[in-house]
Amino acid sequence: MTPKRVVIIGGGFGGMTAARFLRDADVILIDRTNHHVFQPLLYQVATAALSPSDIAWPLRTLFRSQPNVRVVMDDVVSIDRTAHVVRLRDSAPIAFDALIVAPGSRHAYFGHDEWEALAPGLKTMADAVHLRERMLLAFEVAERQRAETGTQNRLTFVIVGGGPTGVELAGSLLEIRRKAMGPDYPHLGLEDLSIILVEAGPRILPGFDARLSAKALTVLERMGVIVKLNNPVTVVRPDGVMVGNEWVASTNVIWAAGNKASPLLNTLAVPQDSCGRVKVRADLTIPEDPWIFVIGDAAHCLGHDGKSLPGIAPVAMREGQYVANLINQDLSPDRRSPFTYTDRGMLATIGRAQAVAQIGPFRASGPVAWALWCVVHIFFLIGLRNRVRVMSEWTWYYLTFKPGARLLFEPPSGQRHISSKDHVREFAVEDRPLSRRAA
Amino acid sequence: MTPKRVVIIGGGFGGMTAARFLRDADVILIDRTNHHVFQPLLYQVATAALSPSDIAWPLRTLFRSQPNVRVVMDDVVSIDRTAHVVRLRDSAPIAFDALIVAPGSRHAYFGHDEWEALAPGLKTMADAVHLRERMLLAFEVAERQRAETGTQNRLTFVIVGGGPTGVELAGSLLEIRRKAMGPDYPHLGLEDLSIILVEAGPRILPGFDARLSAKALTVLERMGVIVKLNNPVTVVRPDGVMVGNEWVASTNVIWAAGNKASPLLNTLAVPQDSCGRVKVRADLTIPEDPWIFVIGDAAHCLGHDGKSLPGIAPVAMREGQYVANLINQDLSPDRRSPFTYTDRGMLATIGRAQAVAQIGPFRASGPVAWALWCVVHIFFLIGLRNRVRVMSEWTWYYLTFKPGARLLFEPPSGQRHISSKDHVREFAVEDRPLSRRAA
Repeated sequence: MTPKRVVIIGGGFGGMTAARFLRDADVILIDRTNHHVFQPLLYQVATAALSPSDIAWPLRTLFRSQPNVRVVMDDVVSIDRTAHVVRLRDSAPIAFDALIVAPGSRHAYFGHDEWEALAPGLKTMADAVHLRERMLLAFEVAERQRAETGTQNRLTFVIVGGGPTGVELAGSLLEIRRKAMGPDYPHLGLEDLSIILVEAGPRILPGFDARLSAKALTVLERMGVIVKLNNPVTVVRPDGVMVGNEWVASTNVIWAAGNKASPLLNTLAVPQDSCGRVKVRADLTIPEDPWIFVIGDAAHCLGHDGKSLPGIAPVAMREGQYVANLINQDLSPDRRSPFTYTDRGMLATIGRAQAVAQIGPFRASGPVAWALWCVVHIFFLIGLRNRVRVMSEWTWYYLTFKPGARLLFEPPSGQRHISSKDHVREFAVEDRPLSRRAA
Repeated sequence: MTPKRVVIIGGGFGGMTAARFLRDADVILIDRTNHHVFQPLLYQVATAALSPSDIAWPLRTLFRSQPNVRVVMDDVVSIDRTAHVVRLRDSAPIAFDALIVAPGSRHAYFGHDEWEALAPGLKTMADAVHLRERMLLAFEVAERQRAETGTQNRLTFVIVGGGPTGVELAGSLLEIRRKAMGPDYPHLGLEDLSIILVEAGPRILPGFDARLSAKALTVLERMGVIVKLNNPVTVVRPDGVMVGNEWVASTNVIWAAGNKASPLLNTLAVPQDSCGRVKVRADLTIPEDPWIFVIGDAAHCLGHDGKSLPGIAPVAMREGQYVANLINQDLSPDRRSPFTYTDRGMLATIGRAQAVAQIGPFRASGPVAWALWCVVHIFFLIGLRNRVRVMSEWTWYYLTFKPGARLLFEPPSGQRHISSKDHVREFAVEDRPLSRRAA
């Protein structure tokens, strides 16, 4: 049987790559948004260094030259794996011969989903724009208070999670504090802003070599970030968080800890791990169906070291390519070689001209790693337009410290009546969407 | 008396220019957003040709080098002209020695404010982003219907108002229809999209020479826009508009007709014209107070032909500069020469390589006028960064027809459950803010 119709759920790194590599099949790519996002740079949108359109691509435009790919903007409600049909919120059900499930993940709140409203995460462009609004509004409120009353009302940003996203967010906020805050918010002093990075484990960047973790810690602390290790967050309230035994007052908590796979996966009714990821077989299929694949953040896939592969873009892209090849060649299960992934290294930026890099046996930190980070991220951006835009934005920002993306649109009417006092509570009641992509 | 403190309400062209020219005074610039917008290009954000940050500047960053200017992001609730105090929504009241009122305007719905939710206008960045979402969603819904049912469900955009904004919006939509629709929405044919431009008066671009109006009409009609002249809109409903005696079914109505000045002006309790603009004296002050000025869209100011000056950027900027000079020189009313404005001409773009220009005795249309339009608009953008960004976006779009800003973020949860059938009603109940700037 040649799979005639391939349905892909999710236009992230995994789903998009699969669609690009599928040759003869009729492909239907479903996403709840109309664009692909370069997630590794989302934190720069959240901190107003880049604009949304610098790191996002309309899916329809991406697939203009591939007439076999049809893009559908919709939410997938459930997967019927017996009937080989996906059900959508607005569209008619779609039957498939092969299915690639790549709906991504949201952050894990460890059984406290009510924390999400108080400590939003950073997975989608909507998240990033929301965080940017929140950050800019917090600066405005602090500046106004200082100007009116002269009293110090400490502006504390707490970032929960010491992985790359947490570290990169902390570094970006620090840069705003060091270089942009003075000129733009004349009443705020450096002492008015604290940046606290909280990590439950013994070190930040746990995926990296211990030596690079230590180096990153040194750099962050030298630049002024307060890092609290071995301290899980146990309580989140509108006015602060409990870090270990210590209460930290903050109305700006950002969540960058843990992943929880899309709840859509539950409708497959196959074994999942504790994060909700589907335990896929060696060819990335679910048990009992050789033509339903799960990839990216949604898959629990073992690497050759016996540990599950990390939920990062290179893994998702390799998986998408692997699955597309299986489908292109119409390989029956017994003729498939298992999926393998060769680690291509890891990079994390810490701040201006500071990063850590770990590529095979190679280790670097400081400006060299940072330059490498810039080159790699520019290289992986799709298309000339966005490469040029991001490169010029970075150069501009580096030279002038004037980020151009610091825009606060009129907040929606529900949020508009926020006074400095009750703005905590306003954000607390806000309802955040839970799942990320077509889930 | 040297005015010690100058309060400016509104960071548009008038208020921003006044702040830039004020030298010795302590200036407090109040805006409800945190950015200045280059309004003449807003329609390009609404049609996804440009990104918000391409044509907006954070006010704080604009005034970094002017330490005498303090930026406050807040809504002005009322002006107490006896006590010389402005009252704000979130901040403490602010006393002033001189006041520059530049809160701008919203569109006029001719006594039918309920139409605004059905036929939103285009005055702020929030409006533009909202229109962009609405347009992109309409295309998605139409594409899905066509793909699923094969039946033609005509996608009709109705633009109310034949002034420059209406004409420019019609031209941009047309360009999307001609060049981008086919590749991106493969199920939609050219015949699926209609663009209707409605004008109550006898010609489009009424501010221009009759000959240029006729030229613009010819170009628009040749490119496929249906223009209905002498036809006021008398009814707006979620499913269409009544144009003269004809019912036009459309769920995408955009309002680009008429202006109504900010309701904040009513709190001044001085004579206003039928559009709500304050009838200012020759030195742009209100009656009985030589230190309260009203400028820009909010002022009814007579030109030397006895007609009121149009609400365009060059007028507002000249007014801002004039008022700043009066305050800088601390001129008493009897020593002030009246404000004068020399017309610098008008430009309107119609579509790809098509525009009309009218500068003094000079008249042009076609590619020459279009090139002039590009140069002028690039020239008036503030700062190198945005000039380079806009120029490169235009070049990219012109060459590739791939607009990069076509992003649809996850719609807020209220809007998310829109099926093709009831999306009309959903938009109908949406609540839009009425006033534009700090009003």
